[in-house]
Amino acid sequence: MDIVYLNGNYLPLGQACISPLDRGFMFGDGVYEIIGIYHGKLVSSREHLLRLQESLKAIKLPLKISIKHWEDIFAELIKRNKAENKNKYIYLQITRGASEKRTHVFPKGRVRPTVFVMLRDSHIPSYAELSKGFSAITRADIRWSYCHVKSIALLANVLASQEAEIHGATETIFIHNNYAIEGSSSNLFIVKDKVLVTPPKTKRLLGGITREVILKLAKSLKISCKVRNITKQELFDADEVWVSSAARDIMPIIKLDNKLIGNGKVGSVWKRMQQAYQEYKA
Amino acid sequence: MDIVYLNGNYLPLGQACISPLDRGFMFGDGVYEIIGIYHGKLVSSREHLLRLQESLKAIKLPLKISIKHWEDIFAELIKRNKAENKNKYIYLQITRGASEKRTHVFPKGRVRPTVFVMLRDSHIPSYAELSKGFSAITRADIRWSYCHVKSIALLANVLASQEAEIHGATETIFIHNNYAIEGSSSNLFIVKDKVLVTPPKTKRLLGGITREVILKLAKSLKISCKVRNITKQELFDADEVWVSSAARDIMPIIKLDNKLIGNGKVGSVWKRMQQAYQEYKA
Repeated sequence: MDIVYLNGNYLPLGQACISPLDRGFMFGDGVYEIIGIYHGKLVSSREHLLRLQESLKAIKLPLKISIKHWEDIFAELIKRNKAENKNKYIYLQITRGASEKRTHVFPKGRVRPTVFVMLRDSHIPSYAELSKGFSAITRADIRWSYCHVKSIALLANVLASQEAEIHGATETIFIHNNYAIEGSSSNLFIVKDKVLVTPPKTKRLLGGITREVILKLAKSLKISCKVRNITKQELFDADEVWVSSAARDIMPIIKLDNKLIGNGKVGSVWKRMQQAYQEYKA
Repeated sequence: MDIVYLNGNYLPLGQACISPLDRGFMFGDGVYEIIGIYHGKLVSSREHLLRLQESLKAIKLPLKISIKHWEDIFAELIKRNKAENKNKYIYLQITRGASEKRTHVFPKGRVRPTVFVMLRDSHIPSYAELSKGFSAITRADIRWSYCHVKSIALLANVLASQEAEIHGATETIFIHNNYAIEGSSSNLFIVKDKVLVTPPKTKRLLGGITREVILKLAKSLKISCKVRNITKQELFDADEVWVSSAARDIMPIIKLDNKLIGNGKVGSVWKRMQQAYQEYKA
C-alpha cells in the first residue's frame, strides 16, 4: 500500500481521510502540482514549488511551507515507498480546508488548509512509444478565465480529455478566438520551417515548467524559437506539433482531427528536443 | 453530531471519509444540489432532482437513483437529525468516485460514484433582515462556458463571493459581454416600470429552481414579466434588483457597486413576491 502525506502525517493511502466538508471536495477550492521523478531524482522541483506559491497567491490561500520542508516531505515519501531510483511523480494538492459552514465565501477564523502529497507511478511513455506519435483533437476552449492558475477545479479539462479519449486521441487542444492555446493537461508547441513556436503566457494558459525547460533547451540546441500566438490554421499547417507536461514529457502529435501533421511522422526537431530533455532530466 | 449519508450508509459527519483519490477532491468532477426544507417540508425537491439528472447527463456521469430513493434518504436524514418541523436544507453531492489512477480521462472499469448527502441549518435571512436590503458588486464573469451545469468546480464562484465579502457586499453579479447574467450563487431579477425581467436560460446561466418558482408566482400575481437579456446599464437603472436561490430565498439588492438602486429602499414588487414565495414554501 502506498504511503502518502496528509496534514503532517505519513499513512497508508487507504487510511487517508478527507472530510466531505473539505473545500477541495465541495468547491474545487485548491491548487496542485505534479513533479516528475526520474530515476529517483526530482525534476525541476524548485520551479514547480515556486509556481505553487503563485497558484496559492492567485486563489488567496496563504500557506507558508518552505521549499526545504516540501523537499523533506518528498524525500520521506520516496524513502517510505522504496522509490529510490524509480520513475515516479509527486502529486501534491492544497485546499482551503474543511470548515463547518458551507459557504462560497472563505471560511472565517482559523481553518487549516489541507495538504496532501502522494507518489505515483510515472505515465511517461517510452521513447519507442513516443516515436510512434500520437493523435489529438481540437475543441473550443470552455475553461474559465484564470487558466494560468493550476487549480483543482478541473472539470472542463476532464471533459475535454474524455472527449479526446472517445475519439481515440491522446489530447484535446483548446481553441480560443481562433488561436490554439494549449492541451487539456499540456502546453503546445509547433515547428514550422525549423522554427519552434509556442503561445505566450497569458491568463488563458498554464505556464508549464516543462514548457520553460523546452524553451531553454531550444536555446542551447540553437533551435530558432518564437513565443507568439498560433492560429488554428497554423496548427494544422505545422511541420510538427508537440504537447508537453511534467507527467508525460514531450509528445509528438502526428494526427489532428484525423488530418496528418506534416508527413504524419515524428519530426526531426522533436527527436533532438526529446533527446535533450532526457539528458536534462538525468 | 450531524448524521450524514455517504454511499449507502448513515453515519456521523466526523466519521464520513472521502478518499483523497476521489475525483471530487482532485478534479471538481461532480455535481450538487441544495434543496430547502421549510418547517420540515422539502421545497421543490422534485424539480431539484430533475435538474440533478440534467447535471449528471451534462458531465456524462451515469447514475440511476430514483426520486423515491432520494426522498427516502432525505426523510431518513430528517428523522435521524430530529429536523422535523425545522428550517434546514439538504446538500447533496455526487462525484465520479475514487479511482486508483489519477488521470483526467474518466476511470476505466467499474468505479462507484460517490454519493454524499447532509442536512444543514438554513442560511435564509428573516423577513426583517431581508427588508433592510443588501448590497452587491458587479464583476467580469470569469467562469467556464458551462455555467448551466451545477458542478462542484466552483472556484470562480468562490473567488467572486469572497470579492463581494471583502467589499462588504452579499453577492457578486457577473457581467458577460456587457450583460448582467446572474450572481455567484443566485439568479438575477430586475424590476423596471413594474415589469419583472430576468435573463434567459443559456449555457452562461444556471437555471435556478427558485427562479422558475418566481416566474410562476409572477404569473399568478399578475406581475408583468419578461425573460430577456439585461444590460449592465439597465441593471443600474432598475427600480428593483433581486437575487434568488434555494439557500437564501429572494434577496433585494438596494446598493450596487456603492450606487443606490432606485430610491435605495426595498421595492413594492419584491414585497409582494417575497410574501407569495413564503406562502409557496409553506
